[in-house]
Amino acid sequence: MALVKFIEYADASPEVRAVYDDIMTSRKVDWITNFWKALASDPVTLKRTWDSVKQVMEPGALDALTKEMIYIAVSVTNNCGYCINSHTASARKAGMTDAQFAELIAVTNRLANGYQVEIDERVAKAAKQR
Amino acid sequence: MALVKFIEYADASPEVRAVYDDIMTSRKVDWITNFWKALASDPVTLKRTWDSVKQVMEPGALDALTKEMIYIAVSVTNNCGYCINSHTASARKAGMTDAQFAELIAVTNRLANGYQVEIDERVAKAAKQR
Amino acid sequence: MALVKFIEYADASPEVRAVYDDIMTSRKVDWITNFWKALASDPVTLKRTWDSVKQVMEPGALDALTKEMIYIAVSVTNNCGYCINSHTASARKAGMTDAQFAELIAVTNRLANGYQVEIDERVAKAAKQR
Amino acid sequence: MALVKFIEYADASPEVRAVYDDIMTSRKVDWITNFWKALASDPVTLKRTWDSVKQVMEPGALDALTKEMIYIAVSVTNNCGYCINSHTASARKAGMTDAQFAELIAVTNRLANGYQVEIDERVAKAAKQR
Amino acid sequence: MALVKFIEYADASPEVRAVYDDIMTSRKVDWITNFWKALASDPVTLKRTWDSVKQVMEPGALDALTKEMIYIAVSVTNNCGYCINSHTASARKAGMTDAQFAELIAVTNRLANGYQVEIDERVAKAAKQR
Amino acid sequence: MALVKFIEYADASPEVRAVYDDIMTSRKVDWITNFWKALASDPVTLKRTWDSVKQVMEPGALDALTKEMIYIAVSVTNNCGYCINSHTASARKAGMTDAQFAELIAVTNRLANGYQVEIDERVAKAAKQR
Repeated sequence: MALVKFIEYADASPEVRAVYDDIMTSRKVDWITNFWKALASDPVTLKRTWDSVKQVMEPGALDALTKEMIYIAVSVTNNCGYCINSHTASARKAGMTDAQFAELIAVTNRLANGYQVEIDERVAKAAKQR
Repeated sequence: MALVKFIEYADASPEVRAVYDDIMTSRKVDWITNFWKALASDPVTLKRTWDSVKQVMEPGALDALTKEMIYIAVSVTNNCGYCINSHTASARKAGMTDAQFAELIAVTNRLANGYQVEIDERVAKAAKQR
Repeated sequence: MALVKFIEYADASPEVRAVYDDIMTSRKVDWITNFWKALASDPVTLKRTWDSVKQVMEPGALDALTKEMIYIAVSVTNNCGYCINSHTASARKAGMTDAQFAELIAVTNRLANGYQVEIDERVAKAAKQR
Repeated sequence: MALVKFIEYADASPEVRAVYDDIMTSRKVDWITNFWKALASDPVTLKRTWDSVKQVMEPGALDALTKEMIYIAVSVTNNCGYCINSHTASARKAGMTDAQFAELIAVTNRLANGYQVEIDERVAKAAKQR
Repeated sequence: MALVKFIEYADASPEVRAVYDDIMTSRKVDWITNFWKALASDPVTLKRTWDSVKQVMEPGALDALTKEMIYIAVSVTNNCGYCINSHTASARKAGMTDAQFAELIAVTNRLANGYQVEIDERVAKAAKQR
Repeated sequence: MALVKFIEYADASPEVRAVYDDIMTSRKVDWITNFWKALASDPVTLKRTWDSVKQVMEPGALDALTKEMIYIAVSVTNNCGYCINSHTASARKAGMTDAQFAELIAVTNRLANGYQVEIDERVAKAAKQR
């Protein structure tokens, strides 16, 4: 459960809506993820973070896919589940193949986190105090 | 699922109860959180940890709220979900406002972890191998 | 939800089956955990990882239990839930007592992560924005 | 040895100078630290980073000193020596007392890193293979 | 350079001296390392930390050497150079062989940090911007 | 100071020399870095690590440069100075431009570590207790 309320588009102030609109236009999507809805509780941070992310992630000397893959590597090393999921989704959308993802996770050398593997029920049971 | 059994007050030894009583008195609450119930499986660590936490967190050159906010920052950076929740609860109880919390999370620069944002179902689906 | 499909024994290629067979023989078990089923989506990494783990974890100057306990310490410090559960299960199977586990977690000094304590509902509620 | 060349004021482009000038004016100092001189090798990142830091660190619901102390806690947990030194310097300038610093480091519970303690020569010798 | 002044025995208050004496007696040494001299700037934290370390590290269900090796694993994963050196020195004193150390570092899988390998001058030069 | 002795080629056993020869041939260099010389104190780990690194880093679905850049991102996030230097050197050799490096470090968002910025003497002085 997130520690702040999510701000839906319908309830958003004009300044928050402006950021939401720019996110949707830039990313060619018609909805907003929880991350931005959480940040919207602090509109100044919402705008600053979006402006930064937009600038950092736009293609330059590195193409968009390479940047997303680097972001996945950082997220896996930081063990941030939200970040791993969202950047993997973006990377797949930008064309990342299964083979590229596998090689990327191999380089990070954090395989269980990298693939977000669920704990086996039998293992969890065996790990518990009897 | 925790890896050790929780010790409830009713089942606790006198030495564990003494710590539980001190926790409830010091914090002005009438129940014990899972963290302490887990530690009670090792009464020596329970007592040592509580004595340390009590001493470290008591107001001194820094007031109680500032200490809780510093603890939140450490917990967010360590990505410890249990710790983030418990120190945020304590900080709110000590008077932390939404604006203070937002500025604190902004300084940590770990926004998804800091706000404990849930992964969007649509994102999780898009991140998965097809 | 894991980000890759799990490969079941029945669906596995001969090279993946060879690794699965070696895992089950070496560990004297008759099933394969999610970790290996996820890695099997990349058979080269599956084989390399299993060969490494097998070599690193086999008793030498340190016995198998000590190695598992060191692995738990690393997993707790890295905050990898999957790893904590699987190495704790292995360590218990190798004879780790509750007292040894408690002393190990005390040395790591990451108690909430180490014991994988669930967040109390009341705490989660108190941590949330009202 | 830093991995990029430092850009001195005398050699800086007008856009870099504009950031340097704003840093010096805002912080009431007459020189630029290595961090900014390194970032200046990438003027877009220099400007974006300075604009963010300036906004995040300016007093709001939290005063400047509390923000610097939270930043120290994050830096200690991340084990970033440069960051620990620079935020401790800023915090002292903002009035942090020795007692406040000690309590802050105690909350982080990373004492050797927090105080940036040098390795004893005798210990280093005893740690080495003979 | 440490961020606090070291307190030498000759300059120490009676309460600090009492801790120093206990450290030297318990560890059968006749000098105090920088870590404790730094903590002595905050006598309450010095005493609390020493009391905790003494209790956590004393042989119980795990022998002293196993505890030191677990501490090395935690220190390597946290990338704390001071901690790696001091616990490796203690472990060697407690009888850790070169082969045990090698197997321990192999389990941590952080080899460059674990062995505290110095950066090659040629590599540092090749890594720098030309 | 590394915690194990470096094994020079002239003093190496035939099995260690075989690995050294393969490293030099594969990388088209005529010398061995400290990392491998340290690992050579444990020839089994030396061979296993080299075989893994060689397999993980060889071009496949991702080219060699992209893999080195992902490795830099992991090293920066783990704050491993040795690793940052050695992978940055390899990436530059593989053709990484200054602009690519800058964008990569920007994605990691660990700028002081990423660029390995030296602490300013004036800052270190200002951070110290007076």
